[in-house]
Amino acid sequence: MPVELVQNNYGKSRVRLLKVARHGDRHDLQNITVNIALEGDFDDIHTKGDNTKCLPTDTMKNTVYALAAQTEEIEAIERFGQRLGNHFLSNNEQIFSVSIDVVEHQYTRMTPDGQPHPHSFTKNEGEKRVASIRMTREETSIESGIDDLIVIKTTESGFSGFIKDKYTFLPETDDRIFCTSVKARWKYADSDAATDKRWSAVRKTILDTFAEHDSLSVQHTLYAMGEAVLNVHPGVEEVSFSLPNIHCIPVDVAKFGEENRNAIFLPTDEPHGLIEGRLKRK
Amino acid sequence: MPVELVQNNYGKSRVRLLKVARHGDRHDLQNITVNIALEGDFDDIHTKGDNTKCLPTDTMKNTVYALAAQTEEIEAIERFGQRLGNHFLSNNEQIFSVSIDVVEHQYTRMTPDGQPHPHSFTKNEGEKRVASIRMTREETSIESGIDDLIVIKTTESGFSGFIKDKYTFLPETDDRIFCTSVKARWKYADSDAATDKRWSAVRKTILDTFAEHDSLSVQHTLYAMGEAVLNVHPGVEEVSFSLPNIHCIPVDVAKFGEENRNAIFLPTDEPHGLIEGRLKRK
Amino acid sequence: MPVELVQNNYGKSRVRLLKVARHGDRHDLQNITVNIALEGDFDDIHTKGDNTKCLPTDTMKNTVYALAAQTEEIEAIERFGQRLGNHFLSNNEQIFSVSIDVVEHQYTRMTPDGQPHPHSFTKNEGEKRVASIRMTREETSIESGIDDLIVIKTTESGFSGFIKDKYTFLPETDDRIFCTSVKARWKYADSDAATDKRWSAVRKTILDTFAEHDSLSVQHTLYAMGEAVLNVHPGVEEVSFSLPNIHCIPVDVAKFGEENRNAIFLPTDEPHGLIEGRLKRK
Amino acid sequence: MPVELVQNNYGKSRVRLLKVARHGDRHDLQNITVNIALEGDFDDIHTKGDNTKCLPTDTMKNTVYALAAQTEEIEAIERFGQRLGNHFLSNNEQIFSVSIDVVEHQYTRMTPDGQPHPHSFTKNEGEKRVASIRMTREETSIESGIDDLIVIKTTESGFSGFIKDKYTFLPETDDRIFCTSVKARWKYADSDAATDKRWSAVRKTILDTFAEHDSLSVQHTLYAMGEAVLNVHPGVEEVSFSLPNIHCIPVDVAKFGEENRNAIFLPTDEPHGLIEGRLKRK
Repeated sequence: MPVELVQNNYGKSRVRLLKVARHGDRHDLQNITVNIALEGDFDDIHTKGDNTKCLPTDTMKNTVYALAAQTEEIEAIERFGQRLGNHFLSNNEQIFSVSIDVVEHQYTRMTPDGQPHPHSFTKNEGEKRVASIRMTREETSIESGIDDLIVIKTTESGFSGFIKDKYTFLPETDDRIFCTSVKARWKYADSDAATDKRWSAVRKTILDTFAEHDSLSVQHTLYAMGEAVLNVHPGVEEVSFSLPNIHCIPVDVAKFGEENRNAIFLPTDEPHGLIEGRLKRK
Repeated sequence: MPVELVQNNYGKSRVRLLKVARHGDRHDLQNITVNIALEGDFDDIHTKGDNTKCLPTDTMKNTVYALAAQTEEIEAIERFGQRLGNHFLSNNEQIFSVSIDVVEHQYTRMTPDGQPHPHSFTKNEGEKRVASIRMTREETSIESGIDDLIVIKTTESGFSGFIKDKYTFLPETDDRIFCTSVKARWKYADSDAATDKRWSAVRKTILDTFAEHDSLSVQHTLYAMGEAVLNVHPGVEEVSFSLPNIHCIPVDVAKFGEENRNAIFLPTDEPHGLIEGRLKRK
Repeated sequence: MPVELVQNNYGKSRVRLLKVARHGDRHDLQNITVNIALEGDFDDIHTKGDNTKCLPTDTMKNTVYALAAQTEEIEAIERFGQRLGNHFLSNNEQIFSVSIDVVEHQYTRMTPDGQPHPHSFTKNEGEKRVASIRMTREETSIESGIDDLIVIKTTESGFSGFIKDKYTFLPETDDRIFCTSVKARWKYADSDAATDKRWSAVRKTILDTFAEHDSLSVQHTLYAMGEAVLNVHPGVEEVSFSLPNIHCIPVDVAKFGEENRNAIFLPTDEPHGLIEGRLKRK
Repeated sequence: MPVELVQNNYGKSRVRLLKVARHGDRHDLQNITVNIALEGDFDDIHTKGDNTKCLPTDTMKNTVYALAAQTEEIEAIERFGQRLGNHFLSNNEQIFSVSIDVVEHQYTRMTPDGQPHPHSFTKNEGEKRVASIRMTREETSIESGIDDLIVIKTTESGFSGFIKDKYTFLPETDDRIFCTSVKARWKYADSDAATDKRWSAVRKTILDTFAEHDSLSVQHTLYAMGEAVLNVHPGVEEVSFSLPNIHCIPVDVAKFGEENRNAIFLPTDEPHGLIEGRLKRK
């Protein structure tokens, strides 16, 4: 019975790299995890076990280290991803397209005497800076983003006026806790716009909007954050969010004989709402 | 500056359910986790904070429990997903499409005296049975699958004849360990074909092929498994795999004065190769 | 101000090893993770930065691979742990005591045609076999055990007659779901008793007791399992358990208009009860 | 065969609580996870299934919420733990001793316009503040601490002069990366000394010492940090650390034709060294 391979890709995932730039007065540090996936003329690998056109994933891993070593300075992950993509496309005509996903784990420089220390850092867990680079010989698409940035506001958030069917028991509220873990992605019109400074500025727009928005739902705030990013940053042409609603359930302490001050909550991980949306300039 | 909401969806994730069917002589047990995502006429929720058309995610959670309670028997997750999808579409005209993802955590009945025990079980961690149901008012698509099934073979696996560039140091081998964590998905031509029995049969085809295949690469085995599924199961029209190469690196014990018997390996989780492919009937 | 180092130890953790025994007709497989911790005359390492008596943890890791390579056959983890402990004590007079903790990840041989396959396996996630070996030059203590074995029974479990204070709202029940993740440890009177066969037999006693016991509390079943282990296995002199109560909360489906058949539950990971106890022969 | 219950305890784990203190001009926020374990006259629960002296773990959970609701202000976790311990001991004569472990997840107040926002925060993942309170009717012991604080220094760390045996291949170095995840615990002579301010001051001493110390081994820095804590904080009488050596392995980029600038490293999670020590005032 004839069978067809309709899609395939392969690559190396979870390639970890720590890079140190040793300047005279201070060291800079970058910790990233790289995922590489290639598409190309790979059918014979599958159907015949013919590896003639197969670049080993171990080689991809080595390429990450080699190309990182070629520059002395730390570079933006969007730049590094493009260099990797260019390398694979330039040296392997059997490859049609390259996907590079980079996650950057961030650090804070220590300040023992109130002064920035030359070479000691604490690691910021949770929030990660991310970038996805998709390249063919014809075009390059760059998406920058944030993963796992947990934010919370203790008021100016409500949820009411929703559908009530026979399975609805959720009380309406005009004052609830709003907690989410921000996953954001944005595309630049021009890939040169993907700088460290712009990343920080988009991040600030998202956080400021979350803080200041009078939220009528997670969707409402999602849209407000997306609208703000597009309004404030003309270089961004599209932005999307995936926002779990990390429910903080009010505990009815009156049941225990205590005064209810809207103060005691049970934060939960599951189940959770999940709200996703993508906005672009008209 | 005008801005457009180009895509959005929302729902409830990680809804956990344990269901017991209490027959006279034995209990049956099902443990599932359900993710629900809806698309529909939801723009006003985002842009105006108008929740008139918003079915709360808490209601979706309750719906899972209510619909599960409507049947006494345990039902296949593909059936339960369809019932959920139908419920949301039938009762909410503002909804265009429903995605239901179900993960089933499996159990093994205990056998204290060599006999099946009526109500005691051990839980099988790792491997999960999964199903994805996508429904609009026009059509239903059902994908069944397996997640996290770790398999290993200690011989009849090689990797050679690949590209050698300046970053390639991987030795060729005709006898390596092959370990992967199977993620498989398959689509049935007819959704009634998605039965418990068929799921087990497709799973067996995948495992048998892995065991018996003389592997020249992960890709080579991926294709062989896909081809076997399509050949043996005419009701399946498409099958895809995502296979991490869980590298088991030979330890050079000769360095420590010991004989190298191809016996001592370092299993690693990162970095890992990742091989993906999708096959369908021509 | 004078300061004293009152206790210290160091070693290597998460040393992973996969060992293959290649017999003519079949391969055997063992996958373990080893943690090593040493106590000894190490004060100068701390106080002076003098590493003269410091065996590098990298050397400990290599020792695991070297000693594993010395035997062709797979050996019980209790045996391998003792060989490791003996090696460190024999070759390092500055060491007073050695702790070796071994976790074994188990596999099931595949049976493609109903026959055991010579070299293909599925991995059993979840439950692990464990052993802790503590050795000084004077004595050796061996503890065998089980980690993460999740068991569940759907009836013959109740909880009632407990204290009711002003914060107690838990209903009494004589028919609840009982689910726990068994962590068990047992000590053998004689370390030679720590065989594969005995491990399986103790495990069976624990499971059989869980299945058959009419449980009035987690504590009640813990004690019954411990008593059974000591009664059935004279070579075991002490046994302990740590048992989380993985609550499965009944969902009140009557609220949704459905019949309550004690069938629909919400399984939760947090919060959970935790019950611990240790029994020995009088 | 007579059997004895030599030790037992039970309680509730992973009780999560989010508390908001709503002041006029700003909200304060506390997110904690509480584990409770009790020892007492509980043998009959085990041996007879008699729950007369059993305080349900569900009641313990409710007690956490009730006692948290009794104070309007956020209180130090050491204080809250003591209140919980006192409650259980005062109301349950069958209890001999109470262990309360509290983990605090920390937040940073947002500053949208450079000003502290009244009610919006980002969550700091990774590092946690912890406290362990052990109470009997006779005495109270309080241990404060830090978990999962990852620190790194890119120079002023070496490791040399160690034992070389036949399994030693680690090169000596006087310039390596030193990365660890700090787990620290300290005991106060007087439990009233356990304040927020003191916790931050001890934390600062640990970080400053890590940054400034010229490290000859992980042990050497562990001791320096402990000595500094005891020297700077007379209220602390004992301090201990558990420090994984998160190895950052130099990548030999010369192999790839690139200049080796001590710049490219592979950070790994396993295997890892683990160094532990406890210091007290003489």
